[in-house]
Amino acid sequence: MHNRQALIDYTLHLADNSLILGHRNSEWTGYGPVLEQDIAISNIALDLIGQARNFYQYASGLINQGDAGARAGSRAAEVTEDSLAYLRDAWDFKNCLLAEQDNGDWAKTILRQFFFSAWQFYLYGELQQCENSELAAVGEKALKETTYHLRWSSEWMIRLGDGTEESHARMVGALDELWKFTGELFMPSRYEQQLIGEGILPDLSLLRNKWDEKVKEIFAQANLSIPEGTGGVSPWMQSGGKEGRHTEQLGYILAEMQFLQRAYPGCEW
Amino acid sequence: MHNRQALIDYTLHLADNSLILGHRNSEWTGYGPVLEQDIAISNIALDLIGQARNFYQYASGLINQGDAGARAGSRAAEVTEDSLAYLRDAWDFKNCLLAEQDNGDWAKTILRQFFFSAWQFYLYGELQQCENSELAAVGEKALKETTYHLRWSSEWMIRLGDGTEESHARMVGALDELWKFTGELFMPSRYEQQLIGEGILPDLSLLRNKWDEKVKEIFAQANLSIPEGTGGVSPWMQSGGKEGRHTEQLGYILAEMQFLQRAYPGCEW
Repeated sequence: MHNRQALIDYTLHLADNSLILGHRNSEWTGYGPVLEQDIAISNIALDLIGQARNFYQYASGLINQGDAGARAGSRAAEVTEDSLAYLRDAWDFKNCLLAEQDNGDWAKTILRQFFFSAWQFYLYGELQQCENSELAAVGEKALKETTYHLRWSSEWMIRLGDGTEESHARMVGALDELWKFTGELFMPSRYEQQLIGEGILPDLSLLRNKWDEKVKEIFAQANLSIPEGTGGVSPWMQSGGKEGRHTEQLGYILAEMQFLQRAYPGCEW
Repeated sequence: MHNRQALIDYTLHLADNSLILGHRNSEWTGYGPVLEQDIAISNIALDLIGQARNFYQYASGLINQGDAGARAGSRAAEVTEDSLAYLRDAWDFKNCLLAEQDNGDWAKTILRQFFFSAWQFYLYGELQQCENSELAAVGEKALKETTYHLRWSSEWMIRLGDGTEESHARMVGALDELWKFTGELFMPSRYEQQLIGEGILPDLSLLRNKWDEKVKEIFAQANLSIPEGTGGVSPWMQSGGKEGRHTEQLGYILAEMQFLQRAYPGCEW
């Protein structure tokens, strides 16, 4: 299988997206605006971390299988879902920059979730028809949860965007901060290009069109406008996360998230 | 030397105070209100981390000396200044809770520094006359820096407290948050009680009187009032840090501060 490294990188990209956004959402636990929504965002965090586990398990299998020859007779440890989550450093993480952006206020968290869930929704829809049966199975399972995440975040988008003057202003502020991170979702990395070339992944422009339609639909109901560039030039889009070039924020997430495994290697509950 | 453990604990207490407050101050680097003060607070951070190194070096010597018998023939690693700073967990840290409180705004950082520097100033003044020559040497060296820290923070106390309505209000807010952490500076821990009993440390109430005088003097110039309790009862004072019982904040400091040594054990520049 000559695309094995691309497949590993892509699976890690999917896993890292879910883990990092899941961790961000979990920071709300105990701080949500009302108890019901505190529980909702914490449940979404758990769903995302569950997706990450499934992808990490598949990735670790691929890595160990390929390394078995090299490892025979040596003492190199097997890669596990835990070592992938807790023992890699920032430049190995392949999540989109959108996932690692800070929570800000509730409007920013909602907008981040809406952009992300709309992207996951169409991506997992394609993934479940993918010829790679492992990715298809994870995609199918995750699609159910993601359908709920998208509905939940869409409802909040409308409630805040079309709500009071204050909530609308906060949503506009969030959009100003986050829009520049949406382009990366549809810019194929090297490993995505390879898998697209081999017919394992669909062309990302197909996803982009569906995502654009959904964003337009919800923005219309939320009384929000999609940012436009000046002089006919599209707004600048940030990228790099998929290839391991992250914002400063990821380092702080990892320091906190990985403390336990790094301080107490191999510890278990 | 039957007070060896008390001496180790006390030295670690002094080291941890300086390291943790130094780390907090270093968080301002690049964010100070004006360049000159950004550099000033960063220099104070470096002074404090330098003090911590001196105390950690003395403590590691004491620990290794005592453990040499136990370690002979075993593979247990020697304790170093780095292992003490970067590989202990929160419950081993003996800093006062004041040192770990978050930076908040500039007023809170200034007030924390003033309370702390005034305490260090009188403490190091006593320490340099201490019969333990190592502690006396570190105290003497640190006193020069601390004299400057106390003058710098006193000037800022007056500038903010006796400044605009806004700066005064912020100073009052900071006082409301931090006053409750000042009592611990003068509540002797078990190891301090032992060393006081053996005549190595002075009675902490002597330090308290000098500190009270200094606080009154600067507060008068800064147009600030020392908080009083209600009904003749003094305000409640938090404690526990000296004995390893910390606020939630220390865990986040350690996660960030210790990441490098935990991710790359034994790494050097």
